[in-house]
Parts: sequence; structure tokens; C-alpha cells
Amino acid sequence: MNGRASGRVRLELAYDGGGFHGWAAQPGLRTVQGELEAALERLIRRPVPVTVAGRTDAGVHARGQVVHVDLAQGELARLAGRAEVSAAPLVRRLNAVLPNDVRVTGGEPVGDGFDARFAALWRRYRYRIADQPVAQDPIERGFTWWTRPLEAEAMARAAAPLLGEHDFAAFCVPRAGASTVRTLLELGVRRSGPGRVEFTVKADAFCHHMVRFLVGALAAVGAGRQGADWPERVLAGGERPPQVQLAPAHGLVLEEVAYPVGDAAQAAQAARARVYRG
Amino acid sequence: MNGRASGRVRLELAYDGGGFHGWAAQPGLRTVQGELEAALERLIRRPVPVTVAGRTDAGVHARGQVVHVDLAQGELARLAGRAEVSAAPLVRRLNAVLPNDVRVTGGEPVGDGFDARFAALWRRYRYRIADQPVAQDPIERGFTWWTRPLEAEAMARAAAPLLGEHDFAAFCVPRAGASTVRTLLELGVRRSGPGRVEFTVKADAFCHHMVRFLVGALAAVGAGRQGADWPERVLAGGERPPQVQLAPAHGLVLEEVAYPVGDAAQAAQAARARVYRG
Repeated sequence: MNGRASGRVRLELAYDGGGFHGWAAQPGLRTVQGELEAALERLIRRPVPVTVAGRTDAGVHARGQVVHVDLAQGELARLAGRAEVSAAPLVRRLNAVLPNDVRVTGGEPVGDGFDARFAALWRRYRYRIADQPVAQDPIERGFTWWTRPLEAEAMARAAAPLLGEHDFAAFCVPRAGASTVRTLLELGVRRSGPGRVEFTVKADAFCHHMVRFLVGALAAVGAGRQGADWPERVLAGGERPPQVQLAPAHGLVLEEVAYPVGDAAQAAQAARARVYRG
Repeated sequence: MNGRASGRVRLELAYDGGGFHGWAAQPGLRTVQGELEAALERLIRRPVPVTVAGRTDAGVHARGQVVHVDLAQGELARLAGRAEVSAAPLVRRLNAVLPNDVRVTGGEPVGDGFDARFAALWRRYRYRIADQPVAQDPIERGFTWWTRPLEAEAMARAAAPLLGEHDFAAFCVPRAGASTVRTLLELGVRRSGPGRVEFTVKADAFCHHMVRFLVGALAAVGAGRQGADWPERVLAGGERPPQVQLAPAHGLVLEEVAYPVGDAAQAAQAARARVYRG
């Protein structure tokens, strides 16, 4: 092998979370990581660990998930049947082996400064709601939460004070010893059509269940069960009250993960994030 | 009962065809008609036959399917718990009883000139294709045909001469004794995004499998297996050659059925269609 650093590959993934017990590999359960690592092992003929940008919950979908794997240069070339510095043959052969509910939508060799998890600048999620019977489209029910009528303007007002850097402990299931300080870059609520509401949620990173608790809290405002100032007060309280309910997983899609351009900038971003969130 | 004519109700339906053996009721199989008639019988407490605009094949979806049923005025009022001339209580209660893969998206009382099948002016279908790996979105795979790269412009050129009134026998599975003359009002092919192609197909009515054979024939042109003049020659030949393949059901959605406005115009249209296609 040519050393790990020289063969790092970035892959983009899309998946339908409905058939998976989430991202993270678990013995005896079907997971996205499990399927991807099984496909890689079959093609590369050795176990290939995968590092992911966002560990999605059971039932959550992705259109722009990012991972990295470390291959030897010879391993990429063997897949292509010739000297090969592109990841295209790997992408093609992974898609031939993977089941239809997970697809590799792109890939490229990257420098060893790239890290799918730590070099990310931000993650962007979308949450889809149908709040009127006329919009409750059976064809789209696998990725849309059907709920009662919501007032989108009240939700948008409630969302504004949550933007910026805060301790989001009140909207997380905290992990022992890990920080829950995050920078919320966007929390958009808009009526995307008759009977449809769409959330766009972007942050440097998310603590566990954060998007779904934010959507759940704003939906309580939209349904009139809470006032528009309530989410801000919950945030300030620092502890999650039982009225903050978890929005269902199937409405949520990880849409995009963004990285700095260039190996040095990626390495610097990863170094910062490791100190901050490691 | 107040007579059948006075209690005709038009209902709009959306369904995910993936879980159904098509529209038409069949003993022992799960069908959309079967589910709807079972729900109606449960609410109305007697068998209520349903007349449909478009008998969709197994696996085909609908967003704008239309049916009519005949109820006595007393039956609508009993569901509402008060004198009621709106179909809203029926719609609400049907949705409470129906499974999630079929929804009643609207309903209204209509005159007895209305006939879901015969009074229709036209039906419009949409067929979705992802012809590049980057667009093969697992979340949308239930309603998108994943196929090889297609040339949309060649398909659009091939489609143009098929417009108008023709005998579409070469794009149908004919039923004994039934005409296969139809008026094709629209056959649009456009690239709706990177790696996506969308067909819009509108006609006064369709013979069996007509949309899927049209899409299959145009896809053969788009893939370069046939020239752009081939579909027109097939049409003129009047018999379906084996090269006209059936596009998969799951890419197809019945989007809309249009009717004349007003009872007299609906009755007149129905009388014309019964003579023409009965």
C-alpha cells in the first residue's frame, strides 16, 4: 500500500432512510453504514472503515450525505482495470453492488486534509410538512410529515431569535461530556405550496435530534399550543421541557454538507472542529 | 332514498400505486377500487359502486383521479350529523377509514349529468425518468424510472407527429371490439433538471397501456436504438412491433382529469363519449 494519506476518497450519498435503522452500523440491523461498508469490502477485498459527515437517525433520509474512505492508489486502479486517479470506477461499481435505497451520487480523490466529519463548514437539512389534507400526497408520504394546520408566519417569528451561537441543550439529547454549543446559520420556515410547509435548517453542526426537536417546538407554535416567544424561552432555560416534541424522522432529509476549498483550508477547519467538538 | 340522480358525488383521489394491484377490484387482491368501496360500505352501510375516470394499471400512481358515487341525500346528511349538502364530512370520514396510501383530496355534490368516466374532456399523465446516476434519488425511486442516458430533443422531435386524432392500435393492448382511435392533445418531453426527463401526456382518453407504450417507444429513440421518425412509422403501421417496449408502471402518475363546467355540458359530453367509445 501507498500509505493511507495518498488515497483518501470523498463520496457523496443519497438514501431513503425508511428501510434503515439509521446511519451507524449495528450488529444484526440494516444500516446505511453497514450496507456501504459491506459493498466496499466486497469490491476492495478488505474491510474499509467509513467516516461520515452526519450520523442520521433511523428513518432520516439524505440527498447530500458525505463520507470519506482511505484507499491505496493501487486499489482504485485495480477497480478501473488501468492506472486511474478518478473515483468514477469506484462510484460505478459501488452502485452496481449497493441496494436501490442507497446510491453513490459522486466521488473524487481528496487530500488528507479532508475529513468528512471535522472539515465540514456546515450541514443543511430540509424538513417537509403537509398540513392540509389536500397536500397529503400518498406518493410523497415517505418523506413528508402529515400534521394539523400550522401558521407558518408564527413559526418564522419564533425561529428568528434561535439563530446564531447558543447552547442548544434544550433541543438535544445530550451525550455525556460533549458540548451542545452550536451555531445555527439558518432556520427558515416557508409555505412551499398549498398545504405544504418546508423548514430549512443549517448549522455548523447539530447535536443529537436537534433538527427534529427544533421542528417539533416550532410546530407547537404553528398549531397554536405555544406562543411565538416560547422556543426562545426554552432555549434560554437550557433544559428540554416535555412540550418540546420530536418531529417524526421521515420528514427530514440531509440535503448538503459544505467544506472549504483546498486541502490546507480543509485541514485547518478540521483542526478547529476537533478542538471545539472533539 | 331520494333517487340516485339527486345524490351524485364527485370525489378526487390520490394514491401510491406501489401497494396496489391496480385500480380495478379483483377478488383476493389489494386494489384501489377495493379499498375505496370497502371504506364506502363501512360508512354508508351498504355496497356503493364507484365509477372511475381512469382505470390505472398495477403500480401506476394518481394525484388527480376522479370517481363518482350515487348516494341518497339522507346518506350524506347522516354522515354529517345534520342536514348537509357538502361532501366535506364524507371526505373527512373516508380519509379516517382509508389506508395512508390512498387519500380523498376533495369532493362535491354534482348533477346527474356528471359521469367520472364519460363526461371527461381529457386525462393528463406525467411520466418521470432519471437518466443519470446523479439524479437517481432513492427517496423518489418509487415514482421515477431509472434508465440509461436519453436524448430529450430527439424524443421531442419523434413525439410531434403523434399529436392529433389517430388510431393508436400500435401503442395499445387492444380490447376486442373497442376502438383504439384517440386524440392525443399533448406529448411533451422536457429535461426537468440535471439527469431528469419528464413526459406530459394528455388525450381525450387512452387505450390500454397507451401512455407506457408511448414512453417506451420514445425512450428507444432517446437511447439511440431507433431514429426520430420511427414512432410515426409505427403509428402508421397500425400494429405494435416488439421493439415498442412497455415503460415501467411506477414512473407514471395520473395527474388530472378535466370536465366541462355545468350539468348540461357534462351530460352532453358524456352522451358523445358513450357513442364514440362505449
